[in-house]
Amino acid sequence: MQTVSVRAESRGYEVLIEKGLLARIGELAAEVNAPCRVAVLTDDIVEQYYAESAEESFRKAGFDPVRFVIPHGEASKNPEQLIRILRFLAEEKLTRSDMIAALGGGVVGDIAGLAASLYLRGVRLIQIPTTLLAMVDSSVGGKTAVDLPEGKNLMGSFYQPHRVICDPEVLSTLPEDIFADGLAEVIKYGQICREKIFDWMKDPKARIEEVIGECVRIKRDIVEKDEKDTGERQLLNFGHTFGHGIEKCSGYRISHGKAVAVGMALMARSAVRMGTGTKDCLENLTGVIKNAGLPTETDFTAEEIFSAVLSDKKRTGDSITLVIPDRTGHCRLEKMPVETAKEYLVCGLDRDKG
Amino acid sequence: MQTVSVRAESRGYEVLIEKGLLARIGELAAEVNAPCRVAVLTDDIVEQYYAESAEESFRKAGFDPVRFVIPHGEASKNPEQLIRILRFLAEEKLTRSDMIAALGGGVVGDIAGLAASLYLRGVRLIQIPTTLLAMVDSSVGGKTAVDLPEGKNLMGSFYQPHRVICDPEVLSTLPEDIFADGLAEVIKYGQICREKIFDWMKDPKARIEEVIGECVRIKRDIVEKDEKDTGERQLLNFGHTFGHGIEKCSGYRISHGKAVAVGMALMARSAVRMGTGTKDCLENLTGVIKNAGLPTETDFTAEEIFSAVLSDKKRTGDSITLVIPDRTGHCRLEKMPVETAKEYLVCGLDRDKG
Repeated sequence: MQTVSVRAESRGYEVLIEKGLLARIGELAAEVNAPCRVAVLTDDIVEQYYAESAEESFRKAGFDPVRFVIPHGEASKNPEQLIRILRFLAEEKLTRSDMIAALGGGVVGDIAGLAASLYLRGVRLIQIPTTLLAMVDSSVGGKTAVDLPEGKNLMGSFYQPHRVICDPEVLSTLPEDIFADGLAEVIKYGQICREKIFDWMKDPKARIEEVIGECVRIKRDIVEKDEKDTGERQLLNFGHTFGHGIEKCSGYRISHGKAVAVGMALMARSAVRMGTGTKDCLENLTGVIKNAGLPTETDFTAEEIFSAVLSDKKRTGDSITLVIPDRTGHCRLEKMPVETAKEYLVCGLDRDKG
Repeated sequence: MQTVSVRAESRGYEVLIEKGLLARIGELAAEVNAPCRVAVLTDDIVEQYYAESAEESFRKAGFDPVRFVIPHGEASKNPEQLIRILRFLAEEKLTRSDMIAALGGGVVGDIAGLAASLYLRGVRLIQIPTTLLAMVDSSVGGKTAVDLPEGKNLMGSFYQPHRVICDPEVLSTLPEDIFADGLAEVIKYGQICREKIFDWMKDPKARIEEVIGECVRIKRDIVEKDEKDTGERQLLNFGHTFGHGIEKCSGYRISHGKAVAVGMALMARSAVRMGTGTKDCLENLTGVIKNAGLPTETDFTAEEIFSAVLSDKKRTGDSITLVIPDRTGHCRLEKMPVETAKEYLVCGLDRDKG
């Protein structure tokens, strides 16, 4: 079993990674909290595969599980669903000594994390991510959120889980394109700081435990230095600034992973054209993106994407920080005026200049 | 001007107390945040008296204020109102560099604080309490919350303000019974640790700045030792455990201050009868409560109050911690089985045993 220890400002916790951990979830939870009532929050798809076995394991370890199911998909990540969860916890009379277990992908993790931070001003939380994206990204770092009609993740908190338990075996039931969404984030880690991840991308499933462990360690190292997301953590936004714009333009029909893949390719193209990144970097990056079955281009115009970006919360005052891939396995942060950021976008989209 | 510095785990800030500060709100806010957009959250009554002058002061200091008004009263402290505030902030495109100013009593402070902690996962917050209760209690300590249909303050966060500005002059427009609600909390501070406050209670308005300053310092000292409310901070619950029960029984028609007043008197009576508190203490405490125009008795039965208490979040597992007044100006915490707590309640209610 790989154990990654995370020391966030507000709390330390461990991420455990090994095939088969789901069956041991009860004993692993008991190591961080005495047996108590546990609210298992999940979605209607994950429920069919894993809710029974997770609850059985909890019961064996002396916990008393109750279940709350939300419809799958990003549409559930809204304030109304959050309130329904909180009211469920209140109806079940969970106390401050009880616990929430988030069993699902990023949507379940984000909303359950927010609920855990808000119910009685904070109860214990175990994250059990069931998608690759959630394992390598949203289960580490303590960002929780729901969307508002005005934009994604506008309502949220920083709240560290008490333990994260990743069982890569559950990825076997994941549809290929949802798996690929996770690979986009894996590729991101490779490009921002770990070239060797690109080698593993030839057959990521063959070394999935190593892939997850390495990504979690990278995120851990970055988040520990910058829990509140004001400095180096912005490296994790590589591909995300314009990626979020693309997601938004599509009315969220284009998935997060695919939008980030396009956002990363776009930044690599513009870095070459602006003279701030190497051609090698562009070719390596677009190579692994395509190999993962992910897109590198979009039909949206610079105008469309940029106006979506300007309403995005990443903006601070009149400048934007872009993450620029300058060579394979390395990115740098550049804070620039809004107009310069738009040039990067235009350059990255313009296919004829190549 | 009195300045009380608060060093909470997550952030340090200052509480400023002086008559006339409202007119200087802009310059005082500018000391903790560069001029920016500021969302002034207030209620429809406070708005009529103070919103214009506060915004004028903000404008003079270079801020750009926008206003959001909620209906006055506890009924506004709900998740739907919270979401409306968050959507307003999003529509106004406030960024992480912008600020929220909570101009009002406890309800405004609690919901605005929660909104500030959740919007973009946290933006800057200035508390401008306009009731005595908010000045001495809810503006210090970083507890934010809204109510759920299942109970009070069930959804909330710990979020420290960046500055608290108390202008006791605004208390001149406060109705007498709302002022008295604040006196209940002042009396609480006197009983838990500062006997001299009881002397000031003969004419609290005469020394209102000192009264507020002393209460804020007491709360500061307790909260600094125990930000997350697991130990000594429970002293601040004196009168609150059964007080909350009484509030709940009345469907919140009995105000917080009046319910706490009854809760305190009840605990002093039962302490005498259980042999754990002095008669002097009971007489002094009920004396100042009555002098403040507050009640010391309730018509609800022990059964009614206790079943309301059991659904209250203060409960942890199968024990309850009561705050017992053992002598004037002193209380002690006692964790006890639920059954023993009920004995205290029964003893405190039973007028014939006196």
